[in-house]
Amino acid sequence: MPWSNDKNSELVERARRVIPGGMYGHESTALLPADFPQFFSRAKGARLWDVDGNEYIDYMSAYGPNLFGYGNSDIDAAARKQAEFGDTMTGPSHVMVDLAEALVSMISHADWAMFCKNGGDATTMAMTTARAYSGRRKIIVAVGAYHGSQPWCTPNRTGIVDDDRRNIITYEYNNIETLEAAVRQADGDLAGIFATPFRHEVFSDQMIPSVEFAQAVRKICDAQDVALIVDDVRAGFRLARDCSWSILGVQPDISCWGKAIANGHPISSMVGSHRFYAAARSIFATGSFWFSAVPMAAGVETLRLIRETRYLEQTVELGDRLRAGLHEQAAAFGFSLRQTGPSQMPQILFHEDPDMRLGYAWVSNALKHGVYLHPYHNMFLNAAMTAADIDQTLQASERAFAELKADRTRIPANENPLVLARLKLAR
Amino acid sequence: MPWSNDKNSELVERARRVIPGGMYGHESTALLPADFPQFFSRAKGARLWDVDGNEYIDYMSAYGPNLFGYGNSDIDAAARKQAEFGDTMTGPSHVMVDLAEALVSMISHADWAMFCKNGGDATTMAMTTARAYSGRRKIIVAVGAYHGSQPWCTPNRTGIVDDDRRNIITYEYNNIETLEAAVRQADGDLAGIFATPFRHEVFSDQMIPSVEFAQAVRKICDAQDVALIVDDVRAGFRLARDCSWSILGVQPDISCWGKAIANGHPISSMVGSHRFYAAARSIFATGSFWFSAVPMAAGVETLRLIRETRYLEQTVELGDRLRAGLHEQAAAFGFSLRQTGPSQMPQILFHEDPDMRLGYAWVSNALKHGVYLHPYHNMFLNAAMTAADIDQTLQASERAFAELKADRTRIPANENPLVLARLKLAR
Repeated sequence: MPWSNDKNSELVERARRVIPGGMYGHESTALLPADFPQFFSRAKGARLWDVDGNEYIDYMSAYGPNLFGYGNSDIDAAARKQAEFGDTMTGPSHVMVDLAEALVSMISHADWAMFCKNGGDATTMAMTTARAYSGRRKIIVAVGAYHGSQPWCTPNRTGIVDDDRRNIITYEYNNIETLEAAVRQADGDLAGIFATPFRHEVFSDQMIPSVEFAQAVRKICDAQDVALIVDDVRAGFRLARDCSWSILGVQPDISCWGKAIANGHPISSMVGSHRFYAAARSIFATGSFWFSAVPMAAGVETLRLIRETRYLEQTVELGDRLRAGLHEQAAAFGFSLRQTGPSQMPQILFHEDPDMRLGYAWVSNALKHGVYLHPYHNMFLNAAMTAADIDQTLQASERAFAELKADRTRIPANENPLVLARLKLAR
Repeated sequence: MPWSNDKNSELVERARRVIPGGMYGHESTALLPADFPQFFSRAKGARLWDVDGNEYIDYMSAYGPNLFGYGNSDIDAAARKQAEFGDTMTGPSHVMVDLAEALVSMISHADWAMFCKNGGDATTMAMTTARAYSGRRKIIVAVGAYHGSQPWCTPNRTGIVDDDRRNIITYEYNNIETLEAAVRQADGDLAGIFATPFRHEVFSDQMIPSVEFAQAVRKICDAQDVALIVDDVRAGFRLARDCSWSILGVQPDISCWGKAIANGHPISSMVGSHRFYAAARSIFATGSFWFSAVPMAAGVETLRLIRETRYLEQTVELGDRLRAGLHEQAAAFGFSLRQTGPSQMPQILFHEDPDMRLGYAWVSNALKHGVYLHPYHNMFLNAAMTAADIDQTLQASERAFAELKADRTRIPANENPLVLARLKLAR
């Protein structure tokens, strides 16, 4: 069946009438090549089908949640079993305690856990806990780092007032001098410092922080007796079976989790050390569905698979295989890629591609050959992928490179104003 | 089997080690009588079982989400069917459009819908949309009204900074003079006015607003060209098959939904009129699980049941039957109840009970007789309840009143410091 997107187009038209812009948020295709489908009908393992029936090897994994494959049989069996007993009830199930115990046993710095729904719930609770602990106000975050879409952290300031940001101070990720300047700017009113495990921003190369940087953050937080908060929502359990900064030998006080911890079932979490137990207890945070048992049962099973399977080594091996193959192909066709970040969470940008027309055309070509790659957001491999999937991907990417080379002089400039605005921001 | 709570006590002990305070948020039993169970093992229809196996007729309905009975077979079949296709994917399913169309067709003022996870996501998006539309900052809310646990609206200010509230102005619910004073205080910088459908605050009598009040809010918002936002998260579809203020003949610009719209499956929504389409489109709001298809499929089926069944008339009839029965019983035993709000969302407080010792002792008695009532939060009937359930409830409540009368002079003062603090706040 040749690739088509007629049904998607019809659905987008219907959506525009009843959803502002037809879609919103991080899964909107507004910044993607025009032919990327907006609506999907099915997902299984590492595969995704759009509403026109086109099948893809999916490198987005639902923007992170899919760690063990869509519809993983063990995890979904645990969810279905819990659903027979109860999900959203007048109180939590015992499985909430099981899940908290599992997280605490796996995350070195964690002595306790709280659960919520959005990654942004967890980061906001961490900010509030840091302020409750210290009695101080200022929060230091890296420029451009994404910590959610709440007023204090959303990257788009439309409808946001200055007061929402009055206590936010920024530093350059992995840059100790700018961090120290931010601490001086806080002027004794510092409550906490946020860091993502590595820099994973849209439209930018990813960056692994140095051990020295991580140690410097830890040292400052110790000296000021304030919270070091690692936002592990996106990368959690994709780099380690522990907090991601455990690789660097640095333990935060609080870390934030979400996305993959229940393989796509909706749950997020803030975990922390004993020192912050009383502060975490003193804040008020809740939501209608925060204590639902089904995502917690799915989480318990996901954590078991994290402990007992080679998912991590496997996604790294497959990521390395993909990275090496793409590097070779790009060179063969006269292109040069910037492949940054952990290979299991790859960001792929083209050298000498200021308006990203090459990157956009290449992923658009790959899409037609059955591979869903992303032109500006880091991707996520999952444990349902096999070496055969990588090889099939490399066959598709080779065709995509060949077409890119053939079309090179005819590729139109990237004229999407939203993309151009983001590119300007990223520079 | 006699009532016992040994397993619950063990679990609470385990929970304290790994969850701050053992539990948090609105489902915490910290403010409830000491014997109220914290953990539950099962829920079906109108019934709930705690971890010790005690069975209850549940008048909390998961604090609102359970509208058609726990594990409703039609709704859960729709959810299971969608789960076979896909839930959290790299993009939404067509069911997102179906759900938006269904909401728009049912809610008179709605021309579009956006989906999120927490009620607080929807209220925060409404605030941001109102600011984006008007370019102004001030938001007017009723004193004590609950709009979520985000920094701008959480009822507990621990860890919250003054800047989070700098643009929030309050009025007394259902009081036009105080509303007008709040508008004057906004001094030309007004962005929007929030109102709950009726006053449904903890530890307080509920209050139905007058038509004049609702019309006054509408008139002010029209005159200032700002958003009237009805927060229908708690009461939505429990008073009407439309926005709750449709009963008063007043249409808001934006309304917020959650809780019951998918019968316990996790989803919330902001809906609005054409005039606010562009503003809603201009904001950025998203979450890892906001586009998951399973809760949307459950929502579509829940909305069908809302349209096609007598659930609303039935819950009103059962609520009236309960209210009349309790009124009679209370009088017979020499007590007097304040039963306020819609009978399907009853708040039951005792007259002449300043520290609430009577109310607390009575619900504690009823608990042992198999009925889960709440001493300070409005309750929620659900459509799985039958007249026989109400009669069984009234048998239990009669025994609870008889015991209360027998113990009357020996009931200890309510010494829970958290409760006393809230009572002081509510007065």
